[in-house]
Amino acid sequence: MNVGCAGLCIFAHRSCQNMVYVSRKEHFNAAHKLYNPAWTKEKNVEIFGPCANENWHGHNFELIVTVKGNPDPDTGFVIDLKKLSTLIRNEVTEQLDHKNLNLDVPFMKDKLASCENLIVEIWKILAPRIPAISKYGMLHSIKLYETPRNYVEYFGE
Amino acid sequence: MNVGCAGLCIFAHRSCQNMVYVSRKEHFNAAHKLYNPAWTKEKNVEIFGPCANENWHGHNFELIVTVKGNPDPDTGFVIDLKKLSTLIRNEVTEQLDHKNLNLDVPFMKDKLASCENLIVEIWKILAPRIPAISKYGMLHSIKLYETPRNYVEYFGE
Amino acid sequence: MNVGCAGLCIFAHRSCQNMVYVSRKEHFNAAHKLYNPAWTKEKNVEIFGPCANENWHGHNFELIVTVKGNPDPDTGFVIDLKKLSTLIRNEVTEQLDHKNLNLDVPFMKDKLASCENLIVEIWKILAPRIPAISKYGMLHSIKLYETPRNYVEYFGE
Amino acid sequence: MNVGCAGLCIFAHRSCQNMVYVSRKEHFNAAHKLYNPAWTKEKNVEIFGPCANENWHGHNFELIVTVKGNPDPDTGFVIDLKKLSTLIRNEVTEQLDHKNLNLDVPFMKDKLASCENLIVEIWKILAPRIPAISKYGMLHSIKLYETPRNYVEYFGE
Amino acid sequence: MNVGCAGLCIFAHRSCQNMVYVSRKEHFNAAHKLYNPAWTKEKNVEIFGPCANENWHGHNFELIVTVKGNPDPDTGFVIDLKKLSTLIRNEVTEQLDHKNLNLDVPFMKDKLASCENLIVEIWKILAPRIPAISKYGMLHSIKLYETPRNYVEYFGE
Amino acid sequence: MNVGCAGLCIFAHRSCQNMVYVSRKEHFNAAHKLYNPAWTKEKNVEIFGPCANENWHGHNFELIVTVKGNPDPDTGFVIDLKKLSTLIRNEVTEQLDHKNLNLDVPFMKDKLASCENLIVEIWKILAPRIPAISKYGMLHSIKLYETPRNYVEYFGE
Repeated sequence: MNVGCAGLCIFAHRSCQNMVYVSRKEHFNAAHKLYNPAWTKEKNVEIFGPCANENWHGHNFELIVTVKGNPDPDTGFVIDLKKLSTLIRNEVTEQLDHKNLNLDVPFMKDKLASCENLIVEIWKILAPRIPAISKYGMLHSIKLYETPRNYVEYFGE
Repeated sequence: MNVGCAGLCIFAHRSCQNMVYVSRKEHFNAAHKLYNPAWTKEKNVEIFGPCANENWHGHNFELIVTVKGNPDPDTGFVIDLKKLSTLIRNEVTEQLDHKNLNLDVPFMKDKLASCENLIVEIWKILAPRIPAISKYGMLHSIKLYETPRNYVEYFGE
Repeated sequence: MNVGCAGLCIFAHRSCQNMVYVSRKEHFNAAHKLYNPAWTKEKNVEIFGPCANENWHGHNFELIVTVKGNPDPDTGFVIDLKKLSTLIRNEVTEQLDHKNLNLDVPFMKDKLASCENLIVEIWKILAPRIPAISKYGMLHSIKLYETPRNYVEYFGE
Repeated sequence: MNVGCAGLCIFAHRSCQNMVYVSRKEHFNAAHKLYNPAWTKEKNVEIFGPCANENWHGHNFELIVTVKGNPDPDTGFVIDLKKLSTLIRNEVTEQLDHKNLNLDVPFMKDKLASCENLIVEIWKILAPRIPAISKYGMLHSIKLYETPRNYVEYFGE
Repeated sequence: MNVGCAGLCIFAHRSCQNMVYVSRKEHFNAAHKLYNPAWTKEKNVEIFGPCANENWHGHNFELIVTVKGNPDPDTGFVIDLKKLSTLIRNEVTEQLDHKNLNLDVPFMKDKLASCENLIVEIWKILAPRIPAISKYGMLHSIKLYETPRNYVEYFGE
Repeated sequence: MNVGCAGLCIFAHRSCQNMVYVSRKEHFNAAHKLYNPAWTKEKNVEIFGPCANENWHGHNFELIVTVKGNPDPDTGFVIDLKKLSTLIRNEVTEQLDHKNLNLDVPFMKDKLASCENLIVEIWKILAPRIPAISKYGMLHSIKLYETPRNYVEYFGE
């Protein structure tokens, strides 16, 4: 339990250090298929089942980005969620929304279009860009829902 | 308000007629694009925006089917929802799930792959098949969510 | 479209008649089984499947009650939702919550514990009690979710 | 059930008439209080309870707008949902989002800030503006969630 | 993976130690604004945008409180969720529901009414009060949804 | 933050190690009661309240199983979610769905039917069976919703 830290704070202008985790949910709608080009069509169907359908299928993806940090004493914010939303939209969902993950997305080129691979690439885009919009926050985790019942999470390690 | 119907029931074996609406929700994940082949590519993009993306996009569709009727006095059911679920899956969602609505679905051939057109076709499939699984029920409505914020509903008329 | 009704209102103290539908959602958790005592155990299992399990199963039910009427000009309310909530809790969900629908609920005695039968009984309880808490409203519909994917609706006729 | 209408259509250029209901959900966050200025503070608290709190309270409102019509044969659309979304945002939610319903909203001036009154005013704004963005559609209903458990619906009559 | 702990348990009357995390969700509806009194009105609008609206806005907040501990062998509970619910309501949500976070809430006095600051104050209230209602549990985390798309989480450190 | 691991990977065939957490949600509907047979009926009612109702009550349980691991370079999967779904259904939810947790479930015999105890038993079933369906994954956590507002989580320790 946080029991105060009077006199011990590194940042003297704050009464206390509190690590708060702040999250923003965005969404995008995309097509994809799961298909390993090193395999025959038959093997792809055997391994990926209907997800290997040559003519694609698609999802309403939900993307949750979590930034952690101490709230800025001037704003009460770890990060301005409008800025975080704009960053996610400009750098990530605009490249994915109403797109084909296998064909249209430069950062997924030559990668299997699984959620696991996608979330790692989204991390690489967002992590270095958080400091530019938040003095105190750093990327903590990303969660990606492919359907309401299937989702992945990644902590950058 | 229902005030009873003693002596007036057409079906003498029932104490009363109560029209109950019973609904079942199923889902499917599909790719599609909105594209009118009579138009140029430019006009399609102008009218449909990113929904016209040549390489497709996709959604987690939610489909709600509502059957209305008087409950069967022997079962308390308007319709057995397990049978309704099986019917929807066999006749509708199996043809749509992990498919491309423009390319893979016979009953959407030569139709614009809008939710409006899709729901009318789903009605045509389901409406005549309800009597085979429910003595007392008839199809009342279909609701189709393309996203949690966009949906269509159809009552067969 | 409502185009005003100046001078034509039956109720002279109102500027206009607008039929608004107001809904309140409550919930209860209950056990039940689907079992027709006129049948053998085998026939019950054949017809109701796992829902006939002798040792019961259960659900988190969601109950939505909709009252329609013209807003009271003094309050802007068709019905006070706190009063509607209290009525539903006192007269309906308190009798159902953490109960066995087949064994513990007087108004379901000798009835098949289907959602269709339950919703009709809930209507009979609520419909005559709405006027006591709303001058302008009358019960319009009840919706009962047994699961997020199975639900029934009833309009009292 | 729709059984086709070959040769009988009023609008000869369409193969068939199908009335489809198309919905779009938007949201806004606002403060309000329920307060009748004709009453004493005590009477307001007696009637409205904590909703009468002088210092306001607030909600995340969800607004669902439903337009009905026959799909345009050229687009498969009853209405372009991007245009409907833009209309709702420009004409309605931009005036309500991050606002005080009692103080900041011209069309609610001198009205009790109940959901019933609000939804009727939203109807008056949207109904006459639908034809400008949809040849075939007309406003059918508006649904307004004040909380996930309290909501109102209005059909313009 | 838990592989048993026979003979090593500190609490001899338990067959094994299993750390289970138990959560309860409550809600409250409140008004607030984001406003730093040390700044001009213009700077507040520049930094906080519409959240700085002088006349307030509001939200349906959802609050999830998580307690961790070993289940009590006599009850199978880490904590009685009815007691946790009562604690949260009495000590937290009753002070926030239908209130103005800036004006009506003693523990937010002189603090920026951000979710980050609010969640830290809620932790300070709840953490010391858990032991009184649970022998084995301690506060693990608090999650606060301001909207379905914006939320914060805090672990007390 | 993940900063790459060129040349340092233990598994030379992978470009990098990324620990991804993959989740699958399933559900089951069951009856139960909270009842300690060592206590009198009165004490059970005193401690467990309506949850001790002799005639049972029930819930729609939601079960989320999370597996962590590095994605398989051939499939992009930590684990095939179809296989995980099948495992959960065969080994867990088929034993719980439409059952009485106190009477019908071998692995809950002689245990208090609390969510805390149930989730620990589910862990014991699933943890040793994950390796058979995933080369790279291991069970990370289980989350069990009893209602949308009450849930437990367990990490196997």
